Parts: sequence; C-alpha cells; structure tokens
Amino acid sequence: MRAIDLNSDLGESFGAWSMGDDAAILEVVSSANVACGFHAGDPAGILRTLEAAAARNVAVGAHVAYPDLVGFGRRNMDVPAGQLTADVIYQIGALQGLARAAGTQVTYVKPHGALYNTIAGDPVQAAAVIQAILRIDPQLKLVCLANSKLLGWARDAGLTCVSEAFADRAYTAQGTLVSRSRPGAVLHDVELITERMLRLVRDGVIEAEDGSLIALEADSICVHGDSPGAVNIAHALKRRLLEAGVDIHAFTRGQP
Amino acid sequence: MRAIDLNSDLGESFGAWSMGDDAAILEVVSSANVACGFHAGDPAGILRTLEAAAARNVAVGAHVAYPDLVGFGRRNMDVPAGQLTADVIYQIGALQGLARAAGTQVTYVKPHGALYNTIAGDPVQAAAVIQAILRIDPQLKLVCLANSKLLGWARDAGLTCVSEAFADRAYTAQGTLVSRSRPGAVLHDVELITERMLRLVRDGVIEAEDGSLIALEADSICVHGDSPGAVNIAHALKRRLLEAGVDIHAFTRGQP
Amino acid sequence: MRAIDLNSDLGESFGAWSMGDDAAILEVVSSANVACGFHAGDPAGILRTLEAAAARNVAVGAHVAYPDLVGFGRRNMDVPAGQLTADVIYQIGALQGLARAAGTQVTYVKPHGALYNTIAGDPVQAAAVIQAILRIDPQLKLVCLANSKLLGWARDAGLTCVSEAFADRAYTAQGTLVSRSRPGAVLHDVELITERMLRLVRDGVIEAEDGSLIALEADSICVHGDSPGAVNIAHALKRRLLEAGVDIHAFTRGQP
Amino acid sequence: MRAIDLNSDLGESFGAWSMGDDAAILEVVSSANVACGFHAGDPAGILRTLEAAAARNVAVGAHVAYPDLVGFGRRNMDVPAGQLTADVIYQIGALQGLARAAGTQVTYVKPHGALYNTIAGDPVQAAAVIQAILRIDPQLKLVCLANSKLLGWARDAGLTCVSEAFADRAYTAQGTLVSRSRPGAVLHDVELITERMLRLVRDGVIEAEDGSLIALEADSICVHGDSPGAVNIAHALKRRLLEAGVDIHAFTRGQP
Repeated sequence: MRAIDLNSDLGESFGAWSMGDDAAILEVVSSANVACGFHAGDPAGILRTLEAAAARNVAVGAHVAYPDLVGFGRRNMDVPAGQLTADVIYQIGALQGLARAAGTQVTYVKPHGALYNTIAGDPVQAAAVIQAILRIDPQLKLVCLANSKLLGWARDAGLTCVSEAFADRAYTAQGTLVSRSRPGAVLHDVELITERMLRLVRDGVIEAEDGSLIALEADSICVHGDSPGAVNIAHALKRRLLEAGVDIHAFTRGQP
Repeated sequence: MRAIDLNSDLGESFGAWSMGDDAAILEVVSSANVACGFHAGDPAGILRTLEAAAARNVAVGAHVAYPDLVGFGRRNMDVPAGQLTADVIYQIGALQGLARAAGTQVTYVKPHGALYNTIAGDPVQAAAVIQAILRIDPQLKLVCLANSKLLGWARDAGLTCVSEAFADRAYTAQGTLVSRSRPGAVLHDVELITERMLRLVRDGVIEAEDGSLIALEADSICVHGDSPGAVNIAHALKRRLLEAGVDIHAFTRGQP
Repeated sequence: MRAIDLNSDLGESFGAWSMGDDAAILEVVSSANVACGFHAGDPAGILRTLEAAAARNVAVGAHVAYPDLVGFGRRNMDVPAGQLTADVIYQIGALQGLARAAGTQVTYVKPHGALYNTIAGDPVQAAAVIQAILRIDPQLKLVCLANSKLLGWARDAGLTCVSEAFADRAYTAQGTLVSRSRPGAVLHDVELITERMLRLVRDGVIEAEDGSLIALEADSICVHGDSPGAVNIAHALKRRLLEAGVDIHAFTRGQP
Repeated sequence: MRAIDLNSDLGESFGAWSMGDDAAILEVVSSANVACGFHAGDPAGILRTLEAAAARNVAVGAHVAYPDLVGFGRRNMDVPAGQLTADVIYQIGALQGLARAAGTQVTYVKPHGALYNTIAGDPVQAAAVIQAILRIDPQLKLVCLANSKLLGWARDAGLTCVSEAFADRAYTAQGTLVSRSRPGAVLHDVELITERMLRLVRDGVIEAEDGSLIALEADSICVHGDSPGAVNIAHALKRRLLEAGVDIHAFTRGQP
C-alpha cells in the first residue's frame, strides 16, 4: 500500500575509536546519513562506510554538523551564517568526493545533532544551510524534522524536503518531540515502537504523550544503530512494516 | 612562441589569521593552488579565495596536505597508504564542492609541503596520492616536481602530469632542488630570477649551482605571494615573460 | 597617588600564522593574558611569549577560551558546566607548565572572547569557570568585566577579582559596554582615550555615551596590540598615566 | 622478596567515543599512564580518570604523544625538537592541572605510541623529550623501553628512569621487542605470559624468541586494558605475582 524510508546515522567512528555497528544497521535501513568529519568520521572510515553502503545499495546522505569533534556536534554554536554555509558546502563536497570513490553518490543532506535542532526553528541558521545546498547542488534533498518551520522555509527556497519521524521518541500534542530532559521522552518498548510506526505509515497519525492523535507527515523514519538494543528495534520495525505490506525504500528513489 | 603557466599557493589564511595577499597574487598567476583545510584554509576563507579566482578566470587546483594544521603541513608524517588516499579524496571533494558554489571547478591537484617533497621520491605515498586522483576523477592533472620519480609513476598510472619549476630556487647539477638548508638555495635577485625563468621557458634549460646547464621540463612555474617582495618578483617575472612574447595561461587549458 | 595595571592579549599566533606584536606590547603592559591553545597559541609559540614576558617581568595570566580555533573563541558555545570546568583547568595547567619552563608563573585567569562575554552574566557558565579556579588553585585571581554580575559571583565564591575597564570602548549609562554592533562603540581618538582613562584612574568615573558620569571600579585597563595603531594608543596611554604620577604595575603584586 | 610496578594506558576515551575499561584496569595496576589530549583524552574524561585513579591510590603518569588525534599518536611525525619540547611540557602541565583538581599528582612521564618508539633510538627527539622534563620538573621519572638507548641518554641528563617490560610481547635475542609485523610478536597465552613475567621479576631474565635467556631490567610491566581479554591477562598476572610473594606497588613510591 504505502512505502517508507528508514534512515540511520553511520560512519561515526573516528580514527582508533569505534561507534555503532555500521554493518548491522546497513542490513536494515534504506538511507545512510554518513558523518562528514566535523562531528565524527575520518576520511578512511567514511570511505569504508560508503563502500559498505554502496555494496548494499543503500542511499547516502551528508550528515553535516557544527565543527565540534570533542562535543560530537551536540553543543549549540553561534556560527555566523556565512561561515555555516561554507562549512556545510565543505562537508557535502568532501562526502561527494568519497562517495564517488566508493562508486555511489550523495543524494540528500541531513543536519546532525545541535545543528539539526537549531535549524528546525532558527531562521538565520536554517537559511545558511538552505543556501549551502542551493549553491552546491539544488537537487540534494533536505531531511527536516516533521512539523518544523524548516520544512516551510526549505520548500519556499525551492528545495525538495523529506519529513522525518523518530521511531523511539515521544511526541507532544503539538506534534513536536518531547524534550529528552523529560521522563518518557525516549521509548524502549519494541512492540510499542513498531505499532506506533506502523500506524504512522498507514494512517499518518501518531499518539501524543497526552493520548491525543496527531497528524504527522513522515517520508522517513529515523532508527538508531549505536547499541545492540537499538539495532534490534530497527530490525523488528523493518520486519513489522514488511509483514504489513509496507515497502521500504529510499525516499531518493521517488515519492514513497 | 612558447607558453607557460604561473602557479602560486592561495587560500592559506585560517580563521582569524591571515596569510599571503591572495588578491595581489591573483593578478599574476594563471593557476591557483587552493588550500583544502588540512594544512591551512577554513571553508569560508577558501570560498572567498575561490570566488576571487573565478572572477579573474584563474584555474583552480587542490593543494592537498597532511592533516597538520599546527605544522602547516610541513612536517613529514607516516600516514598509511589507505588513510592518505582517503585524506586526499576528502580534500579534493571538499574543494570541488566549494568551487562549484563559487562558479568554478577544480582542474588539478598539487600536493603541499612535506607531502609534496615525500611523494617526489617515495613510491608508497606517491601511489596513495595517485590512487586518490584515479578514484575521485582521473581527469584531474597532477603537478609534480620536475625531474622527480613521481612524474614517471603518475604517467605510468595514466594521469596527466604537469612538470613544475621553482622560480626562486637553485638547482643541483642533477636537476633537483638544492636543499633549503644549504646557502644559496633560495634566490632573491629579481633580475637573476626572471632571466633564469625566461631561459627555461625558451630553451628548456636552467643553470645549476655548479654553473652547468641542465635540461628541465617545465609546464608551470611556481611563484610565491606570501610577502610583498615575493609578489614583486612574481609581477616582474610575468612582465618579463610577456615582453619576450611568452604567453601565460593555465596548463589546464591545453598543452602550453 | 594611585596605581593601575595595564593588560593585553598575547601569544595569539598559531603555527605558521602570526598575530599581534608581542614584543611591542610587552614594553607597555604590566600583565599579559597569554593564549592557552584553545582559541589561539601553539605550545612552542606560547613558550616564546612566556619567555619574553618573564624577561620583561610582566605578570602572566591564563587567557582561557572555548575550544574553537577556527572561530578564535569568539563564537558562543553551549559547553556543559562539567566540560567547561575541565576545559578551563586543562588550559590553566598547560600554561602553568609552560610558565614554569619559562621561569615565570601564572598568577591570574582572564577568560577570552565569547566565554568572557557569556560568564559576565550567565550564572551556569560563570560557576563552571569559578569552580575550575577553585579546583586548580584558589589563589589565582580572576579578571572580570567591571560592573558585571561575575564580580559578585566570584567574590562570593571566595576568589580575588580584578575589575577591568576597556580603554577603547564606549560605556552605557548603566556602566556596561556599548555593543560593538552600535556606532561609536569603539574609540579611536588617542587624546580622548587617554583622558578618559586618566579620569577613570584618578576619580573612578567614566563618561557614558549619553554624557553622564558613571562610577566604574577598575583595577586594570585592557589595551590592544593587534595593530600598529593599537600599540600606539597603548604607548600613549602609558606615557600619559606616568606623566600624571600614576604608577603602573601588575595587580598581582598587591592592591593597586 | 621483590616488588614490581604494573602500568597501563588510561583516559583514552575522547568525547562521545569510549576506549578501554578504566575502572576494571584500575583494580589491577599500580601506575596509570593517562592520556593528555594529543593522541586521546578530552579534559572532562581525563579528569574522571584521574579522580578514579586517586580514589584507588594508583600513581599517575603523563602519557604524552604527538599531536595526532585521528592517528591516535601512532604515526611517526618529524616534529622539530623545539616544538616537541613545548608540546610535551604543555601536555604534562595540562595533566598536572587536572591531577591537582582530582586530588592527586603526576609523578612520571611515559611517551605514547610512535613517540615512545622513536625516542627509544632517535637522539634528537629523545633529547627534546628529556629537555621538556628537565624544564617543567626534573623530579618526574621517565618510563623507558628496557634496553633502549633512551635509558642511557635520560640517565646521563640526570633523570630518574623506569625500565619497562611488556607482558604480552616477544623479545629478540638482543633484548629488543619483536616487531609487531612479525608472527608471534604478540603473546596471548595467559599461562605463558604470567610465567614469563614471574621469571623476569624473580630472576631478571626473559626467554627470547630463539629460546635463549636474556637479561632484562624491569622496574615496571606494561599491561593492557583495551579488551576484556587484556583485562583478564592483567588480572591473572597480578594474582600470580602476589601468590609468588611479589609485592606490586608504584615505582614512584621508591625503588621496587
């Protein structure tokens, strides 16, 4: 009936330090958000991840971030717009080069961590990221938080947007994510998660923390691969969706 | 009669720190070796340099280096081949992205500093750099030290090479550069420099430190822009070549 | 009659990149805020600056900053308190080690750039910096913006504070700095600057932008050395103060 | 009868990336070589490691390295002597500051990775490291590879040296380490390892790869904590030594 994309963060090892199980999560997802070296990822490690993604025919996106390796791109930074635009172009370009060497290509952009959260609502930094994509390649799609202002801004600028839901996060009645600082913000029950996502894909709605049903546009669902438990959830979700007749493929292959 | 390319290193400022006078040297050269962020250059500064190069129709090359900002890429590093290949692809890709945003393109690669010196004679690191170019874009030309082993290795691998002479350096009777640690290695006399280079372009020979004449293949001459004196030498050289009927244009526009 | 300290930022070169004229400004100041490697300064360059400060008997302070080399520590960063405390201890310790090697010692701490501005009013980051000093050495004095909340917080925590005025900045009627984004925020007239500072030292007052006189506690005056013009202003200020019988010496040698 | 020190590398996590099990290995060792931020270790993580070492009364050493985070300090770098001396002072100072905050102190220096290997035989870089210790604190002991030239150079310069053996490495008949590139260079058999080390401690000899017995001075034995298997070996070694009546305590508490 319907189709959906599953995306996850990959290539987040750095030098001698490992993070996540790229091989395991590549068996699940249709789109891989690959680190570009600013919050994680060294060139040789990124290249290996891209080769693995290419071998599995998984779509590749640039997981661009603030220049903050020690903070893993999770700390807000007041990067002036001109610098931010250039930082994002640099990261996309670097990943495009490595992707070419790996026999694949970058088809979308997904900002990471603090940058992702900030541009969901901050017009100046959002415009800087949009400008970066317009300048390097306006065909690149932009992954945006569902119900965020960024969706409108990016579409007004002519970008093709991908609206994203999070498998393991609670939502407010306003359709925004419940802050991680609040209890219940992160879901751990596999059955609950898979049923919520199936309903979202089928009916376009999700149950908010207060029990109300809210409409949520979702072209892609973000899953995690940074722990064995997370990989299990991702696998279970994929199985459940396939059983229900939902097709899983990258949004970059056309409208799901 | 003949034609020659003049190249120089640009985009070597970093954040709040300035280096060189990019605007001044862009009036002289036909090819700009632009830093890629590993030894120098931050994305916003690199983008400005690329825009200035594009505005003056100066060809752009990727000035790739070891990952050593504090050492300005001048310290030898034993980077394993696989890592070096990925590092070089990453840098070329990043510059290609910024070049696209600036309305120009990367047409060649020139390794910087210690990497330049090492691959002139080290087969392992040379192969790693050659491999990087083959994997990201085999059409990119590689700037090599005249008379170096790298020239042969790169041509054998199918790359188009640009053989480079240095305007302000003394040469040994074997056609190699006199080491900077020896007196007389660097030339400062404008008249001497311009006449040496004119002879090189016209006759394909240069006078070695022992007075002998040696044959030197030179598709491009490297000049410096990191001091007012260096810019003056570059200007004088260009004037002298033009007066003598030598055409100055980028090697990337065809065989000079 | 009275005495005052003159301080300036030093050691801000990085690798191959120069910044400021440390030798020139060391002839003027009684206290040197030395970069610690997070916003500027590489170990070898910092060591040279410390040796020069030691030779001139200039007091040394740790110019601690956010970990943001490419942004020169001028961009706000949401560094969690525990990380910020450790970052500040690390920087002070590194400078103490280099100071010992240079035959001098660190006697105070002055936060730099965005960190300086933020902790003037943000209680969480201010507490993190105060905590760092208490944990590494509570005898270290803390340089604080005059009239800032930080002064009270730091004194309440038991630190000895140094209240600082800026020679070339305009003040609001509330005793705060006029934002750099507003016209007239930075003063350039040498005569005006020297007379304002002399009045401040003698009478403890400064003329605000609206013409009113405001009380300002100042144990130290910050001058700049990052341009020949700035060095000239610093020299003129020192001469004027000495002519007027004001003694210039480091606050770390006792109450001025 | 005799006593020995057990040392291991700690504090090698970086930001979001974990490495090793510091808590587990701290139960075994008497001396902790703590990363200083150049090859591994961020200030907050280093501080946690130091607090854990202080709580267990484990001696702390500065695990200084080349500035090469992405290469984990394992790649040779031609760092000029003056820069290397300053780099080492900077790292020791930073760790001293964090150690003071953690209620402990740095008592020795152990170079890491490529720097450790290089200064075992390279007189220029060895002198640079020795000079760093002499300038910051000549009381700091230096951990040196047993039978290395460094031992002599450092003692001639007046430093107190600690000669180190490796629990899991094979030795040549000349008393040097068998290169990791050769088969059998790294030992995995717990029984074999513990008996070799017991013999070394009791009799001062070790069996070389050719079966010959060689004399080896060992004040400390290096064990690893970067895998569960490594931690098990370390535990087994400690138990075996204690059973045999060997006392295990830090060399910094006096001659073992």
